[in-house]
Amino acid sequence: MSNLDFSGMFSEDTRNFFRSPVRDIFKRVDLNKIYSFAGGYPSADTFPLDTFGDIMQRVLEREGAAAFQYGATQGVTKLREAISKRYGVPVANVQITSSSQQGIDVCTRVLVDPGDVILAFNPTYLGALQSFRSYRADVVGVAAKSDIDDFEKEWRKTIEKCLSDGKKIKFLYAVADFQNPSGETLTLGQRKVLVKLAAEYGFIIIEDAPYRELRYEGSDIPTLYSLDPEHVAHLGSFSKIMAPGFRLGWIIANEQILDRIYVCKQALDLCPPVFDQYVAEEFLSSGALDANLKKSVELYRSKRDLMLRTLEEVMPGKVRWTHPDGGLFLFLTLPEGFDAVKFYDKALDAGVAYVAGQFFHTDGVSGKNTMRLNFSFMSHSRIVEGIKLLGKLLDEVL
Amino acid sequence: MSNLDFSGMFSEDTRNFFRSPVRDIFKRVDLNKIYSFAGGYPSADTFPLDTFGDIMQRVLEREGAAAFQYGATQGVTKLREAISKRYGVPVANVQITSSSQQGIDVCTRVLVDPGDVILAFNPTYLGALQSFRSYRADVVGVAAKSDIDDFEKEWRKTIEKCLSDGKKIKFLYAVADFQNPSGETLTLGQRKVLVKLAAEYGFIIIEDAPYRELRYEGSDIPTLYSLDPEHVAHLGSFSKIMAPGFRLGWIIANEQILDRIYVCKQALDLCPPVFDQYVAEEFLSSGALDANLKKSVELYRSKRDLMLRTLEEVMPGKVRWTHPDGGLFLFLTLPEGFDAVKFYDKALDAGVAYVAGQFFHTDGVSGKNTMRLNFSFMSHSRIVEGIKLLGKLLDEVL
Repeated sequence: MSNLDFSGMFSEDTRNFFRSPVRDIFKRVDLNKIYSFAGGYPSADTFPLDTFGDIMQRVLEREGAAAFQYGATQGVTKLREAISKRYGVPVANVQITSSSQQGIDVCTRVLVDPGDVILAFNPTYLGALQSFRSYRADVVGVAAKSDIDDFEKEWRKTIEKCLSDGKKIKFLYAVADFQNPSGETLTLGQRKVLVKLAAEYGFIIIEDAPYRELRYEGSDIPTLYSLDPEHVAHLGSFSKIMAPGFRLGWIIANEQILDRIYVCKQALDLCPPVFDQYVAEEFLSSGALDANLKKSVELYRSKRDLMLRTLEEVMPGKVRWTHPDGGLFLFLTLPEGFDAVKFYDKALDAGVAYVAGQFFHTDGVSGKNTMRLNFSFMSHSRIVEGIKLLGKLLDEVL
Repeated sequence: MSNLDFSGMFSEDTRNFFRSPVRDIFKRVDLNKIYSFAGGYPSADTFPLDTFGDIMQRVLEREGAAAFQYGATQGVTKLREAISKRYGVPVANVQITSSSQQGIDVCTRVLVDPGDVILAFNPTYLGALQSFRSYRADVVGVAAKSDIDDFEKEWRKTIEKCLSDGKKIKFLYAVADFQNPSGETLTLGQRKVLVKLAAEYGFIIIEDAPYRELRYEGSDIPTLYSLDPEHVAHLGSFSKIMAPGFRLGWIIANEQILDRIYVCKQALDLCPPVFDQYVAEEFLSSGALDANLKKSVELYRSKRDLMLRTLEEVMPGKVRWTHPDGGLFLFLTLPEGFDAVKFYDKALDAGVAYVAGQFFHTDGVSGKNTMRLNFSFMSHSRIVEGIKLLGKLLDEVL
């Protein structure tokens, strides 16, 4: 270890960095030795290894050296075209990112100065909060009201408050489909309110949609982007429809935003991984993606159903949880006074991991009595065993 | 195109973004249709496609699903261990990056606030300048003096001037081996001066070493990192010793710096591409990297020699150039009054591309009479043809 103290050398931004408690869990324990409801990991069963191998061979033969050379900053043209076709948007509006986390980060970088307001649902995705806070944004959270008038009223009140405080609202961040961590989905009415407010008050919406294609019941609801392509930047991800190890995502947005992102990305990392982009393109265009997605949806639906059934069986009466129509998570609410952060060490000692809901709240302290449970990662039998164990532990303290 | 004007929405940082003129050249012309001395592209002949295919197959079989799951933020342990072993540094001091450009960017992010000074050699790597300026750093350039006393005096004078102006110096950026764009290498004496100054004045040195292993003559000189592991962060790259399409690099640095980078990278992109890291590890550990590097060095040496010979033959007498011991570039100096930016359109119309030296200067205006020429990308015959064409064009105007 160094004898020198560099602590005075770091940028102001670093003072606002905060560590992911999820990633810190992974440093502490071996995921395979505990019941882990903590991560947002897809099931390894959804990675079609043979297909990946075949596709890699095809890309090697077809693209040759071009797959290993520097690529365009916007991403490989073929992949941008495939995404353009799949989602019905112009190629010029598609930028490939080195992970959808980078999509969140680069949007924040080009839009937000310290003190600017980012509006977010409470609770919201932890990785987004990490990025927002690292740029010293003023993240203002709003809990979604189920009544549509209350929903609009609450947002309007929050926006007016920010403006009367002299603050500049840059964007609203929303996971419209199967929100991380709550598992909840915005209704069409709620989406229309959001785009109306964005146009009225002149802010942008960052629609983060990594789970959108993992729907287990009900019908697709139009994306925020489709309701207002001018005000919405839509972030897609290959992590849940292909595999996270490729670290590939995309941004669909208007050209003014994409132009800044393009120049920013030159300095960030020049371009996304090139071979991986060709593999993603072939996976998508060959139909392998849709075939695999269909299987993933069936698998995850059965896991969700099993978890819901098991919760019903074993959880103490005072515990409530969400019923997600898709995605990877559901959200538990325990009686007032329960502290999921404090309870965490006890749970981990007993061999079960979750993420305390508090970490997903914009103020970092609300939601003490909540926890996020993932149902995609573990096998069916381990889901049952893990939920039973968690139920037993909760029963002892409630 | 949008009717809305978002120009007031962007962050202060975006006002300092500047586009890579190199990448803009690639948008304008098809590289295969002109004589391109512009990019910093390795030769496609150095990508061992069959070996890559075999290694990918081995990784698929050996690592299975783990190669496609989320990975550790620090990088895959095996790859960090392989780098640790190759370069004789502790594993704890190795962070994998999603490109060495990301290494530059993330170091700047965690160290620099707007107005902080970054010291750099003049001329210096354009991609580093893009990143530095995007964080609104005050980039102060110094031309390297060949006399060692003058070298130290010039740096000391510059440092003292910054300090007397009340500025905070965060780091000195140096490509010690085969500098981009000049092709020049710092002597051991010069390196010792730099680490002495870093310790004396308490700043960090970012040693960017993407070309270090591409040496065509002479012997290795100790890295800045080896001279002072506390004050130096060393950036490595797989782009020139394997292939740039993987977008992988690494940082070797003290744990105080790496800890900030670790937390920052969680928000940037969670982790580097996982499958690619396993491929890089196998490429390195199996010995394929060294075997391939040996061939690359021979190929590039012959291209460098050919370019030097051809320049000697065809360039007007007033033109001077550097003699690089390694790397990918040499640097031309034309008579005072020549403007390489203005000349550029004429050259491109005639079918030959270079990068004007002015873009590599910290003030953005010096070095008008210079240009960078790459000798790695094109075939031997096209190097000769291209240099002859450039010589003819220059002959007409000089």
